[in-house]
Amino acid sequence: MARHCIGIDLGGTFIKFCLLDADRRAGGVFQLPTPTDRVPDGVIERMVEGGRRVLAEAGLKAADVLGVGIGAPGPLGISAGVVRDMPNLPGFRNVPLRDRVAAGLGLRAVLENDANAAALGEYLCGVGRSGGDMVLLTLGTGVGSGIIINGKILHGVHEMGAELGHVIVEPGGESCGCGQRGCLERYASATYLAQYAARQVRQGRKSSLEGILKAKDALNARDVNEARKAGDALAAEVWDRAAYYLAIACVDICRAFDPERIVLAGGMTQAGEDLLRPVQEHFRRLHWSITEPMTRIVISELGNDAGVIGAAGVAWQALT
Amino acid sequence: MARHCIGIDLGGTFIKFCLLDADRRAGGVFQLPTPTDRVPDGVIERMVEGGRRVLAEAGLKAADVLGVGIGAPGPLGISAGVVRDMPNLPGFRNVPLRDRVAAGLGLRAVLENDANAAALGEYLCGVGRSGGDMVLLTLGTGVGSGIIINGKILHGVHEMGAELGHVIVEPGGESCGCGQRGCLERYASATYLAQYAARQVRQGRKSSLEGILKAKDALNARDVNEARKAGDALAAEVWDRAAYYLAIACVDICRAFDPERIVLAGGMTQAGEDLLRPVQEHFRRLHWSITEPMTRIVISELGNDAGVIGAAGVAWQALT
Repeated sequence: MARHCIGIDLGGTFIKFCLLDADRRAGGVFQLPTPTDRVPDGVIERMVEGGRRVLAEAGLKAADVLGVGIGAPGPLGISAGVVRDMPNLPGFRNVPLRDRVAAGLGLRAVLENDANAAALGEYLCGVGRSGGDMVLLTLGTGVGSGIIINGKILHGVHEMGAELGHVIVEPGGESCGCGQRGCLERYASATYLAQYAARQVRQGRKSSLEGILKAKDALNARDVNEARKAGDALAAEVWDRAAYYLAIACVDICRAFDPERIVLAGGMTQAGEDLLRPVQEHFRRLHWSITEPMTRIVISELGNDAGVIGAAGVAWQALT
Repeated sequence: MARHCIGIDLGGTFIKFCLLDADRRAGGVFQLPTPTDRVPDGVIERMVEGGRRVLAEAGLKAADVLGVGIGAPGPLGISAGVVRDMPNLPGFRNVPLRDRVAAGLGLRAVLENDANAAALGEYLCGVGRSGGDMVLLTLGTGVGSGIIINGKILHGVHEMGAELGHVIVEPGGESCGCGQRGCLERYASATYLAQYAARQVRQGRKSSLEGILKAKDALNARDVNEARKAGDALAAEVWDRAAYYLAIACVDICRAFDPERIVLAGGMTQAGEDLLRPVQEHFRRLHWSITEPMTRIVISELGNDAGVIGAAGVAWQALT
């Protein structure tokens, strides 16, 4: 009986692969560079090549495998198995990725949004494996999210749900690329946090970040956190602002979903407790007093592997 | 075979009753006054009396009935079947309402939050009966909500979810009784909309509402809408402010749940199109431009009967 699924996580720079078994043990994670010269054909060939390598390394035959789960950045047609568009890979337009990978490997395949897959990965094998509804926020270039209710990914009826990076946390606030104002992403992603700090410095705020900004012409979230830890007042204010808006979003997540846990993931969580602690503090302060906060805010356990493990988990759920 | 469920909706002034059959036909709605002198015993006796009358009027025996669904205002222990507390009925503390009504009628019973029940009522028999995930907002004294995903009520792991009246729509905004600031309820409930208008008048804003306020020492949402329609500038501003924050909440609901429809219910929806139109207009303007708005905002069809019909629906879902 087939007791394994292959996970593939398609990113703009790397494609990751793994194997997940029926006991939720994930292993054999490796990555191959994403070919950017031949899009999409070269990309799909590499996905198939990597999938075969997963089988070879584990000594499995196709018959031992239930199927393949593919995680990819949106926008996707999830149930159609189609990538509508892919940031960083301009040739990827309306590609029936699911069926082409399935045909290449001779296996059934399913497609899922990468943040949704990461949420399922943490739920099945990471910080959420003890169960209970879970919301994951990925804090990186933007803010992505995945929502797990009763063990299943919430997609929404038009497959446009779980876009918590675009909940409005500040009405009339900063303009977002999505066309809205005041989106969470504009306050709490690594990119915009750093851009906000740079803007403050350029507008004349005194800060130790000025030297870094002059040298690199840009800042990143780590620069801000390092300056904060060295006692820089502007950096502390900017970092705290992101934590505050994340906490607002966490309160709203509790009011809507009342999950067991909210999982912070993505590049910004490399700051660990430096990020988690101020978010938790704002959360406790902002949270209603009707009950104690019952939802726990935690940092992901699987880190960058959550997506590929979750992609395999998506296949398990869809194909069993 | 049992093909009917009884619905009971417990309110502070009236208790409503109905019968729902397996084909989702609801009927026989009537109400009895809520006895406020003998709480909780007299209340429970009246619920049992009303339940027997439902059977008698329909010519049914207990064996024809699957069970009873009870809707009640929170806070509840839903799975425990217990009313923790009831506004307007001070003696109602930690009452095992479900089991006492069940014993009185000799039928199985289930307990549900009244806003959740109303959402299920609209989903099964009202504006949501064609299917698809649905979020209902009740706009009255406060703002309640019910969320239906895959045909089921979303409770949250601590039974504290679907409290969308307390999502933060204005960080640092008006203080709410729940201990938070900037809750939707403080901007978009009938009560607070009218209170806000009264505050503006008392602070010296010129308005035709001044005379009504002097005569009654209070305003209600209808006063504000009537003044708005007669051309009063303050009333127009206050009404529009509520619609704006409701639209913010609707955008956030789309980003989180991406439902088929958002249903507005409760006292304030007596204003009909006067409420719906400005909410829809703000919603279209605030909504992202990545896609056209796909979620429809509509007004409830069942009105005040949604709760009692939904209570019966809760019994159907739990007992089949």
